[in-house]
Amino acid sequence: MAAIGIIGMGLIGSSVARGVREAGLYDEIVGFDRDSEALEAVLAGGFVDRAAPGIEALAGESALVLIAVPTRAIESCLEALARSHHRERLVISDTGSVKGSVIEGAARAFGELPSGFVPGHPIAGSERSGSSAGDAKLFRGRKVILTPTERTSPEALSEVERLWRGLGARVEHLPAGRHDRLLAMTSHLPHLLAYALVDTLASRPESEELLGLAAGGLRDFTRIASSNPEMWRDIFLDNSEALLEALDAFESRLGALRQLVEKLRSEDILALCERAREVRDRHLKRG
Amino acid sequence: MAAIGIIGMGLIGSSVARGVREAGLYDEIVGFDRDSEALEAVLAGGFVDRAAPGIEALAGESALVLIAVPTRAIESCLEALARSHHRERLVISDTGSVKGSVIEGAARAFGELPSGFVPGHPIAGSERSGSSAGDAKLFRGRKVILTPTERTSPEALSEVERLWRGLGARVEHLPAGRHDRLLAMTSHLPHLLAYALVDTLASRPESEELLGLAAGGLRDFTRIASSNPEMWRDIFLDNSEALLEALDAFESRLGALRQLVEKLRSEDILALCERAREVRDRHLKRG
Repeated sequence: MAAIGIIGMGLIGSSVARGVREAGLYDEIVGFDRDSEALEAVLAGGFVDRAAPGIEALAGESALVLIAVPTRAIESCLEALARSHHRERLVISDTGSVKGSVIEGAARAFGELPSGFVPGHPIAGSERSGSSAGDAKLFRGRKVILTPTERTSPEALSEVERLWRGLGARVEHLPAGRHDRLLAMTSHLPHLLAYALVDTLASRPESEELLGLAAGGLRDFTRIASSNPEMWRDIFLDNSEALLEALDAFESRLGALRQLVEKLRSEDILALCERAREVRDRHLKRG
Repeated sequence: MAAIGIIGMGLIGSSVARGVREAGLYDEIVGFDRDSEALEAVLAGGFVDRAAPGIEALAGESALVLIAVPTRAIESCLEALARSHHRERLVISDTGSVKGSVIEGAARAFGELPSGFVPGHPIAGSERSGSSAGDAKLFRGRKVILTPTERTSPEALSEVERLWRGLGARVEHLPAGRHDRLLAMTSHLPHLLAYALVDTLASRPESEELLGLAAGGLRDFTRIASSNPEMWRDIFLDNSEALLEALDAFESRLGALRQLVEKLRSEDILALCERAREVRDRHLKRG
């Protein structure tokens, strides 16, 4: 038996399905989504071989179960997997952007952390969501962070690594807490700021005129802030502690920059702008 | 005589030169840049016909003088134009992102505002800068805001409108103060936030690891924050009052969002994320 079971047919789940099909990584792709329309669209597109009637049925047939739903919906999927007759041999991974809360949920759902559970997070995405946005190449050259627990078995880990490498991703390991603190800074905070900026503009009396004048900078912000709302709500809540720490750090630097502007400190502002450009030139040029 | 004189051969100036050449809007394109290398590159690329030895010489030959330098360098260009024998008949425009300070500078340079001065701002740009980034199509479909003064003559205004329409832009008029307040919100504030975020990440002890994990959201921020440093320093200083007001408004909404996260107000956060997506869907989809 070499089937992969994918729970959640949104951007990530359907991209994994497409990529697995394209690379021939599993003999069979079994899909499940609470939203039967999304599931039918993926079936119609030929990216899954079969739709499972439920999570327990999917578990019985899959060498690897991948949970690709917003982080706050992961625990109920894990609860369903814990009710499966096959719970002892299941290899389970997820794609949630927060890992600490998912691991806590797995411990609650299974009583103790299952050795087959490999928490994971592909650092890939798009402001588009839903199965129609799926892309077999979404993970190529991207990092996938796995945060194995103390109880994760080497066999489960290597099954999950095989999947992501097969999709062209670069796999790295991090402790879950460190993952959550780093991602709070590099991903969750930028999204929070983008949402706050769009909220600021939308709530101005002159918002229509403002949006009519949107230039490049603002367009980037609004694109960031048009990602899947449920997914980002969940991330903000599940990683609230690290996110608020990142926000503290940002507000402190923003306060310093505000003071430079208030005091018209020309040389200091220029130095800050030049450093920012260097950061991009050094690290992120390809982006 | 139908020559255009362009002062400043950066992204905007060289894009205007390329576009004028492509559309045949003037018989001759005369260029000047303090940086002789930039000027030679544009000459070598064939986008200007001649390099002027200085601003006063350029003024003598041009039906329209366009100043395309960072806002704080505009006043010294205007001072040179005020020294020209042709000062009474000059039609002058600029491309600065802040209009109030430029108009004040023109009044200082000329003693009183010249009737030939048409302050302008093309809402177009790129994180790239310099003449090599120039693009004849940069202004197509973009808005150009003109902020004529009480003394601007209809003839000068129509000469400048002809230029931008010929480059494919949509010309609108706004009072300078209103332009500066609106742009503070839609452009200057987003850039300030992007600079502050990149500064936050760069100043963390774990900055190398953070930048290695940069996902989509952060990449957009760092792209915004890699624009021309002198230009943005000048904008922050020249529009500091409106920028600080916009920052106040943002910090107030950010504070409200922070409270929602602290209090784990799930429904309110979801509603905010959904509103942000609607803003994009309604206004900015093409972006």
